[in-house]
Amino acid sequence: MTKRPTDTTLPVLGVLGAGLVPADDPVLAADDLGLTRGDGCFEATRVVTSESGSHEVDHLDAHLDRLAVSCALLALPEPDRERWLELVGQVLTEWHRPGEAMLKLMLTRGRESSPGGPITGIASVTATSEKVLRQRQRGIGVATLARGTASNTYTDAPWLLGGVKTLSYAVNVAALRTATERGADDVLFTSTDGFVLEAPTASVVWLTGSTLHTTPHGGTGILASITQQALFTEAEGDGFTTDYALGTVTDLHAADGVWLVSSGRGVARIHTLDGSPLRDCAEATERLSKLAGF
Amino acid sequence: MTKRPTDTTLPVLGVLGAGLVPADDPVLAADDLGLTRGDGCFEATRVVTSESGSHEVDHLDAHLDRLAVSCALLALPEPDRERWLELVGQVLTEWHRPGEAMLKLMLTRGRESSPGGPITGIASVTATSEKVLRQRQRGIGVATLARGTASNTYTDAPWLLGGVKTLSYAVNVAALRTATERGADDVLFTSTDGFVLEAPTASVVWLTGSTLHTTPHGGTGILASITQQALFTEAEGDGFTTDYALGTVTDLHAADGVWLVSSGRGVARIHTLDGSPLRDCAEATERLSKLAGF
Repeated sequence: MTKRPTDTTLPVLGVLGAGLVPADDPVLAADDLGLTRGDGCFEATRVVTSESGSHEVDHLDAHLDRLAVSCALLALPEPDRERWLELVGQVLTEWHRPGEAMLKLMLTRGRESSPGGPITGIASVTATSEKVLRQRQRGIGVATLARGTASNTYTDAPWLLGGVKTLSYAVNVAALRTATERGADDVLFTSTDGFVLEAPTASVVWLTGSTLHTTPHGGTGILASITQQALFTEAEGDGFTTDYALGTVTDLHAADGVWLVSSGRGVARIHTLDGSPLRDCAEATERLSKLAGF
Repeated sequence: MTKRPTDTTLPVLGVLGAGLVPADDPVLAADDLGLTRGDGCFEATRVVTSESGSHEVDHLDAHLDRLAVSCALLALPEPDRERWLELVGQVLTEWHRPGEAMLKLMLTRGRESSPGGPITGIASVTATSEKVLRQRQRGIGVATLARGTASNTYTDAPWLLGGVKTLSYAVNVAALRTATERGADDVLFTSTDGFVLEAPTASVVWLTGSTLHTTPHGGTGILASITQQALFTEAEGDGFTTDYALGTVTDLHAADGVWLVSSGRGVARIHTLDGSPLRDCAEATERLSKLAGF
């Protein structure tokens, strides 16, 4: 194998049906429903590349499973797993930078001008930012923001797309802007009936004694987090009990530790919630990070 | 001027900074925030082209004003009006098909890899579908669906992007799928406190006696409809009174006429709501359509 003399910091991009494409090339038509309606879904997970260039992708099967769930709830065709795996293989083959990166898969309903035509599928690998690694290391300050929905809003309302990782993330982006204005690193959404839900791109986990808690799925509309689920599975084998139950901001202030958990940042300790410091939990953070594979 | 021998039914596409582009050409990078986050906004309005090829664009100034409002609420730079008008002029110059078409303007935050870099701007003209014209003519059946938010949810919560015409429309698309499953043509969203809000891409207007009503903006989060506002202005000069006030589904069943109003379909009579016929209002529909310019 000849190693190409490319800049190893540049993202690598692949498109279903076209294979590898230079990352700066335009790939999407102006009437792609992913653009015109945010009508599609995505997945993102960590890739760890060794000095020798071999890759480990976190929970790829689980992410492809969740992509299939998103597609089903969006009435999109089931993703062709073999084609996606082939595309992932192609982009990873061109990714040589040792360290952490994010593999992203995006899938849209295709073009407005071709109803029922082919979906658009994109895979990319991008180096994990220093900011993400720093937040994992040092923890984060978080601002709570109202999500405007109740903890049971999404029950029997599939058109609200609860639990679907859609491309329609404008509110998530806007909420993160508000957090920045408030001097925080991230957001924790709360329900109208007073419970914590999730972050724009992470799940919340909190500890009381030896029990790890997280927000239940279903009526809350939150996304089932693969990193949180993997953490809970490992934690159960390590002396923790785990619990899916609604909690309040007050519960978090009283907890023995609170984290935002996601595939890129791992297990990030919330050190400050709405400006108030939370209990120090450096030891638990280290233990949970290891259990989650970070 | 030489008229080019193009297929006059094909969309015409223009891109800010690049000018006219063939409609099938890819124009968007894979990391454009319009795709990856639905992070941008759009406008759509009707273009009527005469047999001689001249164009009338409905309320273009008002749409550019609303685009600027969306940008402000998304913390995007104010759109450069002259550049957008120039781009609109370019796409219209290549649009020759007599009859109705939709002019669409889309604006995204640009590429993830270029934070603070140039926005992406797209203008397109596409022939209005037969389906839209038929619905305007014959009226529509509508299903009510819960939006999951209350009539005051968006008050003091700018991160929820109430009143912003974002590209994050996946829930709107999903709701329309649910309507189709229920044998309806369109959706009317309702609030958790029992009021009608808006349709995925239209406003609701109803008539009692000589008063036209519509849902107020602000706390409801609904989009300020340019077609509805133009209708109300004209209607006030034609003997109607107008009213922004919350109404219930029961109010609509009792009304003298109910319509979904939008820039493409115009004033479309709702003949059936959740399977129950509404009062016939053919005369009022004709009068309101004329007032709205359809």
